[in-house]
Amino acid sequence: MDPVRVISDYVRFPSVSTDPAFAAGMAGARDFAAQLLAGAGLAVEVEQTPLHPIVLGRRTGPAHWPHVVLYGHYDVQPADPLDQWASPPFEAQVRDGRLYGRGAADNKGPHTVGILGLANLLKRRPDLPLRVTVILEGEEEIGSPSFGGFLQKHRAELSEADFVLLSDTCSPGGGQIVVTTGLRGIAGFELRVSGPRTDLHSGLHGGAVLNPIQALAEICASLHKPDGSVNIPGFYDGVAAPEQWERDELKKFPLSGESYKKFLGVAALYSQPDVTPIEATRYAPTLEFNGVGGGYQGEGQKTVIPATAFAKFTCRLVPGQTATDIVEKVRAAVLARVPAGVRVEVKVTQGNDAYLVVPPGKPNAPASAKPALARAFAAAETAIANAFGSPPLFLREGGSVPIIGDIKRETGLDSLMIGLFTPESNLHAPDESLDLDTITRGIAAYESLLEQVAAAGR
Amino acid sequence: MDPVRVISDYVRFPSVSTDPAFAAGMAGARDFAAQLLAGAGLAVEVEQTPLHPIVLGRRTGPAHWPHVVLYGHYDVQPADPLDQWASPPFEAQVRDGRLYGRGAADNKGPHTVGILGLANLLKRRPDLPLRVTVILEGEEEIGSPSFGGFLQKHRAELSEADFVLLSDTCSPGGGQIVVTTGLRGIAGFELRVSGPRTDLHSGLHGGAVLNPIQALAEICASLHKPDGSVNIPGFYDGVAAPEQWERDELKKFPLSGESYKKFLGVAALYSQPDVTPIEATRYAPTLEFNGVGGGYQGEGQKTVIPATAFAKFTCRLVPGQTATDIVEKVRAAVLARVPAGVRVEVKVTQGNDAYLVVPPGKPNAPASAKPALARAFAAAETAIANAFGSPPLFLREGGSVPIIGDIKRETGLDSLMIGLFTPESNLHAPDESLDLDTITRGIAAYESLLEQVAAAGR
Repeated sequence: MDPVRVISDYVRFPSVSTDPAFAAGMAGARDFAAQLLAGAGLAVEVEQTPLHPIVLGRRTGPAHWPHVVLYGHYDVQPADPLDQWASPPFEAQVRDGRLYGRGAADNKGPHTVGILGLANLLKRRPDLPLRVTVILEGEEEIGSPSFGGFLQKHRAELSEADFVLLSDTCSPGGGQIVVTTGLRGIAGFELRVSGPRTDLHSGLHGGAVLNPIQALAEICASLHKPDGSVNIPGFYDGVAAPEQWERDELKKFPLSGESYKKFLGVAALYSQPDVTPIEATRYAPTLEFNGVGGGYQGEGQKTVIPATAFAKFTCRLVPGQTATDIVEKVRAAVLARVPAGVRVEVKVTQGNDAYLVVPPGKPNAPASAKPALARAFAAAETAIANAFGSPPLFLREGGSVPIIGDIKRETGLDSLMIGLFTPESNLHAPDESLDLDTITRGIAAYESLLEQVAAAGR
Repeated sequence: MDPVRVISDYVRFPSVSTDPAFAAGMAGARDFAAQLLAGAGLAVEVEQTPLHPIVLGRRTGPAHWPHVVLYGHYDVQPADPLDQWASPPFEAQVRDGRLYGRGAADNKGPHTVGILGLANLLKRRPDLPLRVTVILEGEEEIGSPSFGGFLQKHRAELSEADFVLLSDTCSPGGGQIVVTTGLRGIAGFELRVSGPRTDLHSGLHGGAVLNPIQALAEICASLHKPDGSVNIPGFYDGVAAPEQWERDELKKFPLSGESYKKFLGVAALYSQPDVTPIEATRYAPTLEFNGVGGGYQGEGQKTVIPATAFAKFTCRLVPGQTATDIVEKVRAAVLARVPAGVRVEVKVTQGNDAYLVVPPGKPNAPASAKPALARAFAAAETAIANAFGSPPLFLREGGSVPIIGDIKRETGLDSLMIGLFTPESNLHAPDESLDLDTITRGIAAYESLLEQVAAAGR
């Protein structure tokens, strides 16, 4: 069974979870996933949820067998703008050593790699002493609204497992694999400034009323200090500098300040105290504006003092911070800076803590990890080194995957995250793709990793 | 001929100059205006321009007769949002002592008042020694693009006149008329900040790149000082405080700080040095943001670092400033504040100087006024006092009417501006209206004013 052919067939189902018009695509992808799991020798179950069902595949066995949970998601992002794709998003196409199609990298390709690695292993070692639970959800791209309920329902079964294994994070490419040792948390805000009861003529009233855009700009400008740090009292409470081993690991990452500037298209990187810009993306908390709007945005000029203006921003959080605490500190700081003449509303749109899963033994390894995690990390290192020709880097990633923290909180399980897509994979964008060589080597790595985990026992 | 009926018939023609779909409405309004002028006893001419024709009405006579130019515009703003009108915008309706309809106040009603005042006068005094040129343009609401060419073509004829008389400014209502003694100039800007070459994932890249919205906020916040003044070096060069007589006149204006706050719906007015907020709207220069945009503005959150963000803003200028000078100062100040890591483009969208036409004899009266202007001011004061029961206030207005300055520059003519609409008139908004009593009294005032001007000779 050619893996590229399998992923291509999987991509053919337009499983866009956010749009009810794609219900048939969701059902098709679900059926395909179920057959894939059955083909690997697993007992398949499709579990209903309030929205999109979850596909489960199980290999049971005695309690002394190690128990690995594989996670993936069969839903995908919308494909628009369609006219920016070089080939149709739901007809996978191989070009220049890459497989193009919506879901090729996020996440059909990567979790198919894991399942095919498992399938190869079980074909070769039908008596392998390993328990496996594969969980493929259909709501990841819309925030996994049903996943919390699923975790609660299956808490007993899952808590008994050893660790979660998944591939939904990023590696730099060039055959260098990253095992992701942490994810930043996130706290989201919408700040709305209201001034006069209605838009005003800026000639007739200009000079008598505080312009909401001016007030918004002043509040937003106050949220960073000139040194680049976030200017919220207590924002850095509990935040530790990255460990020396993490800085050393990042130095091996194939990205220099110069090449990063070139990639981003900027003349200078942002600087803040105590970390380099490249370290900042993984190890430092941030406050980033995501959107701003107010008044007249069309062509030309409309000389209005707008009644309102707003900004959306998110803080990325690191270990030592909690979303609950940051939300209150940001809200209090913003409200303390509201000038006379405007009203300000601060809406909190989301909040999740950071997640850390550094290899046991490292100085910042959380005490809550299960003993099996150490064996899993060791197995991953060997398996990746053998399959890709060089050992993985162990790095925290700057993004946020709230379900990883949810799993830890609900079941106590840590997640071993092996990055199979790369920056060129164009996640959530046109021409999404996955490297063909990574597919082959990834399957071999999964096969070796799982075999070692089984051999190590409990 | 009932004046309310005349204005209602005029309103019936949807003369929206900005939208080619309203060509028939423009033509209908033009024909109506031509008949109105002919009915007043004037020789009518419709002059073609590159876009919308100008309707002219002339009463000629010997050179020793005074020569008044009446200005108005027969085009109107678009009427949308249509669903917010209590009655159809192009079917004028009388309710509670006001005439509702698009153009009732801006400007069909007010210039019809002037023409009907003239018509009454000429009917009663067919031998009146007065020359009149009525100019009704059809592009005022789109920035009068053809008017400069018209002025150049008619420079000789117009330069020989005594003054321009028009009603396209605001009075406070309650029977109190304002003669507008100045208009602020305007300089318009669009500021665009560009950072990374494309929108970035704020998790993967947050912390390494200066967010264009943050840079925009910091630049925008820098444009005012904490005391409320504009923070552009040299911005106030040449700006004089309002004259004591202007402050005294404004104190008679029926608007208190408290009532203004209530009208605006704000808890506090804006404050800046040396002027009260109410003085600031007429006598001080400003920098007001008109619009801001960037990144994700939809529902919920999209965790992006946007590639660009922009702000639109306008400076209102007062005598002593020039648009050319302010444009350069603003541009230089903004470009001097661009932080590393972003690029900034400053586009200048418009520029016009302030205009001052205070009654001759006042300390700040410009020396360039024609002698006839003093007689015109005196006639206006008497005519308005008689028609409305109290003398007018002589006040500068905060808005900008670039053509008034253009007329002065091209022909040397000053403009006597009699405010007939009020804040309740809802200019450029749904439920535009004009007070019926103002129509009657306005016609009488115009009749008396023109009769006095004729009597005074040259």
